[in-house]
Amino acid sequence: MNLKESIRVIEGFPKEGISFKDITTLIGDGETFKQSVDAFVEYLKDKKIDVIVGPEARGFIFGVPVAYAMGLGFVPVRKPGKLPAETIRMNYALEYGTDSLEIHKDAIKKGQRVAIIDDLLATGGTIEAVAKLVEEAGGEVVTLGFTIELTELNGRDKLKKYDVMSLVEYDV
Amino acid sequence: MNLKESIRVIEGFPKEGISFKDITTLIGDGETFKQSVDAFVEYLKDKKIDVIVGPEARGFIFGVPVAYAMGLGFVPVRKPGKLPAETIRMNYALEYGTDSLEIHKDAIKKGQRVAIIDDLLATGGTIEAVAKLVEEAGGEVVTLGFTIELTELNGRDKLKKYDVMSLVEYDV
Repeated sequence: MNLKESIRVIEGFPKEGISFKDITTLIGDGETFKQSVDAFVEYLKDKKIDVIVGPEARGFIFGVPVAYAMGLGFVPVRKPGKLPAETIRMNYALEYGTDSLEIHKDAIKKGQRVAIIDDLLATGGTIEAVAKLVEEAGGEVVTLGFTIELTELNGRDKLKKYDVMSLVEYDV
Repeated sequence: MNLKESIRVIEGFPKEGISFKDITTLIGDGETFKQSVDAFVEYLKDKKIDVIVGPEARGFIFGVPVAYAMGLGFVPVRKPGKLPAETIRMNYALEYGTDSLEIHKDAIKKGQRVAIIDDLLATGGTIEAVAKLVEEAGGEVVTLGFTIELTELNGRDKLKKYDVMSLVEYDV
């Protein structure tokens, strides 16, 4: 099965008009799950990546096994109050209101080359905040990798200064 | 470095009197992270496991790469409202009040042999709820695996009917 076929599309979740891309069917199958992780690894293998970063919770699902497969460490980006040591916090705009994310201040060494991995590129607001956190922590953002890209939402426009890749595209 | 040395202990988080075991230092190092995942895989390799299950968010950090390394699928257990298709919900008691977790109703096939992996065994309340969800979904819980076990809290007493293993123990 190819990756796109393994993703279940659920209409009207979490609200009417949204065509939700459900990755649980992709990761629930050992074969398509391995295929997705290995595709990230293949893309990143010659980029001299030092560490993988991903935002909770779905960002962990792809970023963590990519780190494992490449023999690298993984740095989680989390909602405020979850990380126990000193953090850097970034606020970012949502459709309505704002949200915040944190990274441990000592999680990345100065100059480390970082790949950030998340499940979904929509408008790009979340991942832009994650990239800024990595930079503020001293890292160099080499690649932003996504399992799914919703091309209609033009997330790449916001992320022009970065190398962006995705495994599966949807235009709606 | 051994696994226990790689875990950072932070006193007074999230509140006074708690000695918090911070796994971000373990997973941030490619070597100790790989060591932890491979220890789970070694323990599970002859148990004919069909699928790995883990609760969000820290349960994803170990369960997902174990699934990848074993060529298996991963089934997430999440807070209510996060999973888009039909779910089974389980309420469970916390120190104060209750909480709930959900699993997709169709995520596990009848009779599949399941290993549940989480970062921490404390009183065992969360993982007992996860095990019940797996059983209600039709799975057979073969092993409960934890990165860290707080032995003083006697979580194993609540989980006597299951095979329980952990990688690192603390008695406080």
